[in-house]
Amino acid sequence: MLKVVAFGGGRGLSASLRALTKLDVELTAVVTVADDGGSTGDIRANRPVLPPGDLRKALVATADPGKSETARLFSHRFGGDDFLTGHPVGNVVLTGLLELHANPVDALDFAARLLGSRARVLPMSRTPLDIEADLEEGPGIRTIVGQHNVAIADGSVKDVRLLPAVATACPETLAAVADADWHIFGPGSWYTSVIPHLLLPDLREAIGASKAKRIVVLNLSEEKETDGLTLAGHVDTLRRYSEGVRFHYVVSGDTRTLADPGSLNSAAQSLEAELVAAHLASDGVTHDVSALAAVLGNLLVEDGG
Amino acid sequence: MLKVVAFGGGRGLSASLRALTKLDVELTAVVTVADDGGSTGDIRANRPVLPPGDLRKALVATADPGKSETARLFSHRFGGDDFLTGHPVGNVVLTGLLELHANPVDALDFAARLLGSRARVLPMSRTPLDIEADLEEGPGIRTIVGQHNVAIADGSVKDVRLLPAVATACPETLAAVADADWHIFGPGSWYTSVIPHLLLPDLREAIGASKAKRIVVLNLSEEKETDGLTLAGHVDTLRRYSEGVRFHYVVSGDTRTLADPGSLNSAAQSLEAELVAAHLASDGVTHDVSALAAVLGNLLVEDGG
Repeated sequence: MLKVVAFGGGRGLSASLRALTKLDVELTAVVTVADDGGSTGDIRANRPVLPPGDLRKALVATADPGKSETARLFSHRFGGDDFLTGHPVGNVVLTGLLELHANPVDALDFAARLLGSRARVLPMSRTPLDIEADLEEGPGIRTIVGQHNVAIADGSVKDVRLLPAVATACPETLAAVADADWHIFGPGSWYTSVIPHLLLPDLREAIGASKAKRIVVLNLSEEKETDGLTLAGHVDTLRRYSEGVRFHYVVSGDTRTLADPGSLNSAAQSLEAELVAAHLASDGVTHDVSALAAVLGNLLVEDGG
Repeated sequence: MLKVVAFGGGRGLSASLRALTKLDVELTAVVTVADDGGSTGDIRANRPVLPPGDLRKALVATADPGKSETARLFSHRFGGDDFLTGHPVGNVVLTGLLELHANPVDALDFAARLLGSRARVLPMSRTPLDIEADLEEGPGIRTIVGQHNVAIADGSVKDVRLLPAVATACPETLAAVADADWHIFGPGSWYTSVIPHLLLPDLREAIGASKAKRIVVLNLSEEKETDGLTLAGHVDTLRRYSEGVRFHYVVSGDTRTLADPGSLNSAAQSLEAELVAAHLASDGVTHDVSALAAVLGNLLVEDGG
């Protein structure tokens, strides 16, 4: 069975995972663990555990349909106005599991069993990470720390880094990356969820050293953190952080690409990658799971793995 | 298979449940749902759900040994100093399930499946209840509301009631009570966990109308709410609230009973019940699960059910 590793953060990774669970592959999700908004931000501000939010989303996205009630429980966000308000049950459960297990991978494997997850969900690093970004502000540069802060900041991102600078990748993640036939990057928040996987030196080296072929799935909708960045710009930015890493396919479902693939084609070629343009969304904003599964499935089968 | 219903609240009910899971019986736990201390008190102060604490304890006490990691997760109480501090994970999970299900029995049945519980855990009522007690204070009477407040109040309890006065029993509980071969009361906090089951009119009627035989398991240790009340006094108090309900056995593991069963024997006879005195604790305070299982098992087998 083909081994596929999907890299990402929250919502975008869920989209690629939902598509990949439709294929007959051995699936691993690698999650950024730098998220710090909302419920996750409250939890990591007080507890030295991995940020649970994006991990929860990846677990729920790959849950067995027969465990849909457990998935619904994990996703249930408390309403009302008390100490639980705004927290999804799954974030609290993951926090408890992460406190009970010295190795967070054991906690995540247990949660995956509860949900019958059809993917192994692994953290990029065993320790919580933070995003630091330099943003252009008038003639100067402003440095911002925190995934949520970067995602909502005005100004265009010029550089992005991980904190702590000495962070290392999770050993189980390095093993899965080395052993994979395919690596899938994106869709997702480009600077705060996709590129971070190339910012950990040992993880980038493992990605580059792996025999796997690599697919980049571009976004359909625009986000504040990449305001004004064209799709070709997304590809160029990825290339800038990908020293030693080759990409083989760039997948775009953007309708403008279909009409005029010129500039994106050039950008893909600069990665030595082939552009694959396809209708991937009915609403123009969200990836259609079946359409994305069909495109990814074709690449995996046609290119032999 | 013999059908056994165990009535109680938190810690005491857990003791009888741990013993009863050692026997080959079809087990139902009926929980008071009037608890309001600590984590449970915080939750029910803000949310109209059944108090989760004692329900969680009954679920964990009957969990399949193969689900010990889920049981450990349910019992994990958050440390630290933030919004989660002091809350067991299982209370948050039950709160989520109770919010997701219109019928709390569905929520509890789902939690029981997560834990592989060897008992069905049912609430006394589908709605949260409160304990109200009259305490002797000098020449007068002081009325106190709340299980926790009653449990820690000075002065001896003269009367105990349920709020709301119009509460009714959970239909699934009434069915289990009617269908049972045995009813087990106690051990547990006498006024706030054991007697409340006789305070709901329709539940008391169902208990009295059932063909089941009834066992009362007395406490080993003293509690503040029954300060100064002898074991014979415990039996007399139970009798006072048991109109239409016959008891068949009174089980005591108190070492003084073994030495001098006289007054307790008389009290048991006033219930038309037989006194069964046995060594039930090594430490004099806590029921030994195996010893209690042996005594209950003998009664269930010898008396044919």
